[in-house]
Amino acid sequence: MNLILLASGEVDSAQTVRLSGDRARHLRDVLRVTPGQPVRIGIIDGPFGIGTVRTVGHDFVDLACTFDDGVPLRPPVDLVLAVPRPKVLRRLWAQLAAMGVGRVMLTNAARVERNYFDTHWLSSMTYEPLLIEGLQQARDTRLPVVSIHRQFRPLIEDELGTATPETLRITAHPGVGGPLGDQVRERAPQRVLLAIGPEGGWNEFEMSLLAANGFLTASMGPRTLRTDTACVAALAAVHAGLGR
Amino acid sequence: MNLILLASGEVDSAQTVRLSGDRARHLRDVLRVTPGQPVRIGIIDGPFGIGTVRTVGHDFVDLACTFDDGVPLRPPVDLVLAVPRPKVLRRLWAQLAAMGVGRVMLTNAARVERNYFDTHWLSSMTYEPLLIEGLQQARDTRLPVVSIHRQFRPLIEDELGTATPETLRITAHPGVGGPLGDQVRERAPQRVLLAIGPEGGWNEFEMSLLAANGFLTASMGPRTLRTDTACVAALAAVHAGLGR
Repeated sequence: MNLILLASGEVDSAQTVRLSGDRARHLRDVLRVTPGQPVRIGIIDGPFGIGTVRTVGHDFVDLACTFDDGVPLRPPVDLVLAVPRPKVLRRLWAQLAAMGVGRVMLTNAARVERNYFDTHWLSSMTYEPLLIEGLQQARDTRLPVVSIHRQFRPLIEDELGTATPETLRITAHPGVGGPLGDQVRERAPQRVLLAIGPEGGWNEFEMSLLAANGFLTASMGPRTLRTDTACVAALAAVHAGLGR
Repeated sequence: MNLILLASGEVDSAQTVRLSGDRARHLRDVLRVTPGQPVRIGIIDGPFGIGTVRTVGHDFVDLACTFDDGVPLRPPVDLVLAVPRPKVLRRLWAQLAAMGVGRVMLTNAARVERNYFDTHWLSSMTYEPLLIEGLQQARDTRLPVVSIHRQFRPLIEDELGTATPETLRITAHPGVGGPLGDQVRERAPQRVLLAIGPEGGWNEFEMSLLAANGFLTASMGPRTLRTDTACVAALAAVHAGLGR
């Protein structure tokens, strides 16, 4: 935890918060805070701030909070991701939040197995704590907005809206197109909408639907990667291409 | 499994191999192979080839093998990595092999906890199957060479050998130096020796020892990443910088 994240409702009108559970344990047992010590805090989808330790109890820590004026910008990358198998999805949540994504649109695709949608790793109760863990690791307050789409075509044709020049739409596909990071760098967009297919790849229909809706194709090199590794590698390339 | 890897001793003088266990199950239950069907194979640290299915038994599959003449090159990136905590190390092995590294030198550092060296994830019996899993995912035969160094200074001063112009030595450090991928691209080295520190970072002594031994410093952007995420992101940036 490089940042302690708070829900906006946790801070009372006197700008103090009583932490319990994991966050209190982290402050007490890992950071070994003492009264008067400042710690980095943030409000989920709100500003960063400083919490000054007031009291360290057996199972709680009280902080007096001050917050910055501004709210950090949402990361300039959104992700359309074919639902991976549950074990891979579980590993992915914290890493997506840590790498920085604005929206995560999980979608069906021909090579997504139907039972992948049944996993509890697609329930917000389960993934939200993992997203927050990733934000606390990477020091960000902006929680990725997650949506689940059981039909690929309406997502790509309607729900994404009209392609705009400010947003580069791009999909990674083995061995096709120039390197992902280079393509982002050359076009210098304000945002990137990145589509990552299932481990078996998008099928022909999906590739042509993506192309018809403004998605370019980029290469991720000669190696076939597991979805979680591929997502981290692709997000690294996109952020590097955006010069961040 | 996008490739079935064999140990050289498994193939008999008639160029046939009897597979059992995971590889046989994968061929029979996932790929549903039938006699006469070709499958991609490779010898660990040897050539790629084709295995033609001869017999599919209840708990074995027999293949007749032919192999290419050449052996693929070792990936042009070597890694000096401060030993991460066991849970992270476990997740890392397959991903390192999948991303492509020639050597992995695991090292002590001031911010590595002493008990991290006690984990069974540092025993080759435990990590080798994970490395092979990563190679089978990424379709490579070159097994990363792993070594474990309990002392940082002799590793950097003596065991790495003399810095050569062909190899770019570089370490990622938050917020210092130009972006990692750009620095690799600009210098166009034949190989890269990448050093990744512990989650708390290298300390001042370690940073100056690295600098004195030819390591440049690169930035990985403003976000603090968990070691496994950082390794994948850094290897993606280096491979992209090498134009692969």
